[in-house]
Amino acid sequence: MSAALDLARLRAETPGTRHGIHLNNAGAALMPEPVLDAMRGYLDLEAAHGGHGAAERAAARLEAVYDSVARLIGAEPDEIALTESATRAWQMAFHALARTFAPGDRILVARAEYGANVVALMQVARHTGACIETVPSAGDGRLDLGALERMVDRRVRLIAAPTIPSNGGLVNPVAGIGRIARAHGVPFLLDACQALGQRPVDVGELGCDMLAATGRKFLRGPRGTGFLYVRRPWLDRLEPAMLDHFGAPLTGADGYALRPDARRFETYEHSRAGRLGLGAAVDYALGLGLDRIARRCRVLSGQLRAGLAALPGIRLHDLGPDPASLVTCTLEGRSAEAVRAAFSTAGIAVGVSLPSAAPLDAQARRLPPLVRISPHYYNGEDEIAQALSVLARLPLPAPSRGGFAP
Amino acid sequence: MSAALDLARLRAETPGTRHGIHLNNAGAALMPEPVLDAMRGYLDLEAAHGGHGAAERAAARLEAVYDSVARLIGAEPDEIALTESATRAWQMAFHALARTFAPGDRILVARAEYGANVVALMQVARHTGACIETVPSAGDGRLDLGALERMVDRRVRLIAAPTIPSNGGLVNPVAGIGRIARAHGVPFLLDACQALGQRPVDVGELGCDMLAATGRKFLRGPRGTGFLYVRRPWLDRLEPAMLDHFGAPLTGADGYALRPDARRFETYEHSRAGRLGLGAAVDYALGLGLDRIARRCRVLSGQLRAGLAALPGIRLHDLGPDPASLVTCTLEGRSAEAVRAAFSTAGIAVGVSLPSAAPLDAQARRLPPLVRISPHYYNGEDEIAQALSVLARLPLPAPSRGGFAP
Repeated sequence: MSAALDLARLRAETPGTRHGIHLNNAGAALMPEPVLDAMRGYLDLEAAHGGHGAAERAAARLEAVYDSVARLIGAEPDEIALTESATRAWQMAFHALARTFAPGDRILVARAEYGANVVALMQVARHTGACIETVPSAGDGRLDLGALERMVDRRVRLIAAPTIPSNGGLVNPVAGIGRIARAHGVPFLLDACQALGQRPVDVGELGCDMLAATGRKFLRGPRGTGFLYVRRPWLDRLEPAMLDHFGAPLTGADGYALRPDARRFETYEHSRAGRLGLGAAVDYALGLGLDRIARRCRVLSGQLRAGLAALPGIRLHDLGPDPASLVTCTLEGRSAEAVRAAFSTAGIAVGVSLPSAAPLDAQARRLPPLVRISPHYYNGEDEIAQALSVLARLPLPAPSRGGFAP
Repeated sequence: MSAALDLARLRAETPGTRHGIHLNNAGAALMPEPVLDAMRGYLDLEAAHGGHGAAERAAARLEAVYDSVARLIGAEPDEIALTESATRAWQMAFHALARTFAPGDRILVARAEYGANVVALMQVARHTGACIETVPSAGDGRLDLGALERMVDRRVRLIAAPTIPSNGGLVNPVAGIGRIARAHGVPFLLDACQALGQRPVDVGELGCDMLAATGRKFLRGPRGTGFLYVRRPWLDRLEPAMLDHFGAPLTGADGYALRPDARRFETYEHSRAGRLGLGAAVDYALGLGLDRIARRCRVLSGQLRAGLAALPGIRLHDLGPDPASLVTCTLEGRSAEAVRAAFSTAGIAVGVSLPSAAPLDAQARRLPPLVRISPHYYNGEDEIAQALSVLARLPLPAPSRGGFAP
């Protein structure tokens, strides 16, 4: 069994821990020094030698980012495209698939799907005549694999789901979805934004055909970074909906040829500093070990959930067994924004999860905006205790008068 | 008449000038301290408060970037979308227009169009049945306005052109193109990548309906930044080909509504550090004055062209009157890459312009890879002289044996 994480060292390497209590890792985590160093160092290189001179000097390091990302998810480097966000990564895969959607085609989507993806699905459904169908959730809130199996037929062109949604600790049975998708030859597009960096993710085990993820959340990378994984056999079948001369070099006067690797989904220009920051974040997570990270996240989110459950007037909204380190709750008589403001006054950063972040689920459960508290492995047990004490000290709201205001 | 630029101050504010001679401003310019400070400062803020806490604290500064960009090109802030590259900006406008292309529709494109855009045009033409037609160049190399006027008819759905191409100093008669486009109600998509930051650009004068530009070239901003301008009346008519819940917020269970402003072309996630760097670059250029910058660029590129013309075995490839500060040439018996390497050994950064960067023009003129030397206002006359002396000192190639190698 691996040794526990060295919390003191991890906090020393995280400058943000000296400025407050950061419990919004599902929004954007605090970057560790190696990530910041990679970006600052590269900015210095660009300042000295210009954008092109710096890229030449750092060519090997930039290339190695693909290796790091591939290693993180058990993929091959040529199956990785680096993008400026998870949304762009997801869009590039989805719109490539959607090129051939026709009226009556079916798209099966998890109830927990992310709002950005839902809008993209709606747009494409409207223009192609394909229809979006929400896969029901089982009693424990996870995607219902039996229902999914019954829904799949020849008209299903895509299954889309997140590992962990934006609005809570639910962990979907992704490997089960993958098995069903594979058995029916339906592409499975996984949104792993909230999973990456807090739990092990292996595309071989999960059976997803495409995976989109962001750098800034539990992975602790920079904003404006993300990546797309596309399983090799799908690469040859997918033409990106937008191409430039990087993804599709010109072959002559009238033609171009798609790159053979996943970089066909990239465009030429991007922030090299961001990419190096992403690579450093991946290497940092791999160095600590995703198993150890996951164990610690379970400890802290467990402590938090237990503490919240013991407080009066608080309702937890997370679903499913073994929930992830996204803890969502509402407080009787208080808006999520008011609670967030109270936390902020106490020097604690938490998030608010709006219904639009997971609209299908929010609609099904009639969820209001939720307070989202998302600890990471570098948080201390004392920080969880302090967060709980903020809530415990909040003055109780005036008793409800009942009925509706006029 | 405004005072001349203070070269000593400008160079002191440009750390890269202490590391060599940078004559690749058409590739990516050296960033000045205010740009670097904006990015470093924001990274520090993110390190301290996380990606969301930092964005809240810098909200007003982030919003002001739209104002700066709008001021730079004479637009309104709500006509600006900030993007991660000029290519993405161009793609977002183009693919929105292309949604309604049909077989037989015509796209008129300048011979000097950028390679990335040409690939996008080819892809859409292949899928929609629209055809791409290259507008001929006049005798001086500029787009032939008379020919354009004769080509426009009701089937023309788009005119696409760059102000200044990637492969030389040509300056197209953009305002003339704009007048013709406006007279016929045809949208005009301008690529201003090489113009922005070296010459004044005013969308009112130019008459373009959409403009795409990058941060990293003569504007001296960061890599991974760009923007799209869309003239107000076009905004309501254009649905981006890819949407997320930022560009199109959800309105209920089944619907979304496009943002009324140009930000409908953005996605939610992006590098805030990059945007602030872009804003600082714009403010820096505005502070110096585009007229003064343009004047100095003319002086330096004029000195360079005159010096090159006086050297034996060198052929200049720039077209048109009053050429911009992109000087392209070939050396008898030497590849562009070999010349670039010789410059590099002498501590001078220049670029190589491949035929794929401006494929229609390269094909028409049978251009090989070109050496591209692109001074900016912060370069010194002595640096131009040093660059010329590198070429003058290059040993002459062995006399050609004539004929073709077997």
